[in-house]
Amino acid sequence: MSETIKGTMISYRPDIKVLDATIRDGGLVNNFGFTDEFVRKLYQTNIRAGVDIMEIGYLADPELFDESKFGKWKFCHEDAIHAVLGDILDPKMQLAVMADVGRANVERDLPDKKDSIIDMVRIATYINTIPAAIEMIETCAKKGYHTTVNIMAVSKAKESELQEALDMLGHSSVEVIYLVDSYGSLYPLQIRQLAQCYLDAAEKYGKQVGIHAHNNQQLAFANTTECAMMGVSYLDATMAEMGRGAGNCAMELLLGFLKNPKYDIKPVLAFLQDEMQKLKNDGIVWGYDIQYLLTGYLNQHPRAAIAFTKDQRQDYFTFFQELQENES
Amino acid sequence: MSETIKGTMISYRPDIKVLDATIRDGGLVNNFGFTDEFVRKLYQTNIRAGVDIMEIGYLADPELFDESKFGKWKFCHEDAIHAVLGDILDPKMQLAVMADVGRANVERDLPDKKDSIIDMVRIATYINTIPAAIEMIETCAKKGYHTTVNIMAVSKAKESELQEALDMLGHSSVEVIYLVDSYGSLYPLQIRQLAQCYLDAAEKYGKQVGIHAHNNQQLAFANTTECAMMGVSYLDATMAEMGRGAGNCAMELLLGFLKNPKYDIKPVLAFLQDEMQKLKNDGIVWGYDIQYLLTGYLNQHPRAAIAFTKDQRQDYFTFFQELQENES
Repeated sequence: MSETIKGTMISYRPDIKVLDATIRDGGLVNNFGFTDEFVRKLYQTNIRAGVDIMEIGYLADPELFDESKFGKWKFCHEDAIHAVLGDILDPKMQLAVMADVGRANVERDLPDKKDSIIDMVRIATYINTIPAAIEMIETCAKKGYHTTVNIMAVSKAKESELQEALDMLGHSSVEVIYLVDSYGSLYPLQIRQLAQCYLDAAEKYGKQVGIHAHNNQQLAFANTTECAMMGVSYLDATMAEMGRGAGNCAMELLLGFLKNPKYDIKPVLAFLQDEMQKLKNDGIVWGYDIQYLLTGYLNQHPRAAIAFTKDQRQDYFTFFQELQENES
Repeated sequence: MSETIKGTMISYRPDIKVLDATIRDGGLVNNFGFTDEFVRKLYQTNIRAGVDIMEIGYLADPELFDESKFGKWKFCHEDAIHAVLGDILDPKMQLAVMADVGRANVERDLPDKKDSIIDMVRIATYINTIPAAIEMIETCAKKGYHTTVNIMAVSKAKESELQEALDMLGHSSVEVIYLVDSYGSLYPLQIRQLAQCYLDAAEKYGKQVGIHAHNNQQLAFANTTECAMMGVSYLDATMAEMGRGAGNCAMELLLGFLKNPKYDIKPVLAFLQDEMQKLKNDGIVWGYDIQYLLTGYLNQHPRAAIAFTKDQRQDYFTFFQELQENES
């Protein structure tokens, strides 16, 4: 059975694209304070590991955020990226940035693609700001970028709203529509039902589907692989699952699962022991813990759990009562 | 069952039995060195949380193991259990012990049920020792106990062997046949395929099916819930996922998932903060980590990863090469 079951090439999918979101989602943990050396090593690790796309941060609006209070990867100015990665760029790797609806000015801040080393802009939106997201998508597409849209907090959305959102996005220029489990609250069955909904819309409109999972209930990897097997092709992961709160799907788990020969877990293992371990030793804290389980279980934003972690609390029982009071 | 049930109440299943394996599987981490107070509090927590069965240890043969070298929960002598739990016994809770084929003498060491506070004996076997397991099952059943059989390391078994094993067990007195992912190597798709195989045999022979998962690839919870939704009814979990190596399915995750009103996560949260945290503070180490991911991914016994953990190594790259050499 080990031969037949382990050996099923079900997890070989030629259309898969793995996206490393360590700098972007992980940046929410350390205020984007990665060293240049870390980012360079990560870039080189991703190339060796066969990762297809590397997300290097946000395109935050400097008029809304004080640049002195964050690392440069929150803003991703063209010259700043060039200074760190310019001499080691490899055409095998696409670079992506995220632009939040209402927090980025892509019209003003994003040069035309011909003047940029960024390849892809990922528009992050809640379901009620889809029209604004589409405006941003069209701006980025017109400038020559690949675009994706990440519909956040879908576990809070109504089916009818989601259907309308997918139809609107279907008529836009966006190439990839992401299913995002922002609160890490969705069980595999729910992810499969949602993925089917996204895949149906994608087929109708000629788009592709992506998955961005969070690990509040230790389901980020399981939900990502379930989506992959259903036909979702863009898979987000981060090194040592670094990301906001409970973190994301771990790159080291995902590359073990995927049987495409281009992917290689070994460079990732070296990066974990050399670099990610250092972040942990420096006191940067992320990843699955009881407080994140509880916000995920209650389908709530993780902000209360992040504060609980920061305060080094361990009174889970009281915390759960506080969360339940938030609900009423 | 997986086909027909839809909606959020999918995880309500009146036939579910939750089994707490903290003392037994967790005992493999701390040499069964739990205090009496810990075991009493755990018992009371389980009752409040609605847990159906509590596994309190092994029935190890004192002629094979030196009793001075292990905590008492490796042997589960009747008088020892009585001394700790005798005054707080509650008929709502069944007590279970595990007996390994070749390491327990149930004929000699197990009294008749009428003279015991143990309710259930779980026979653990590899697939090649099923005949010996059946002998033990019949002995325990004749003495009046409920019995389960745990077929370990099924990820290494051939389909034909497994089918033969299930047929043999089908003709025995065993009540529950457990699917056991000893190496934490099975993905949800594989668990579903195996569960279907077990459920088909169970239906044919009038048995029930259980799941005992390990968390090497952060899939213990996902695999347990997937099994539950297919019709598997005995679900093993442990507090804070304490168990050998990467540990098991976390009780706190499982009770959040199950919508049966009898289950309550709150007493578990109190136990985590009061008791499990203390074990961690005392330096007892278990749970998901990269080394366990790698043995799970390679479908290997976790012993090398346990040694890697004990030696406080973090050279994952080299470790992976060592594991691959083990394979060749």
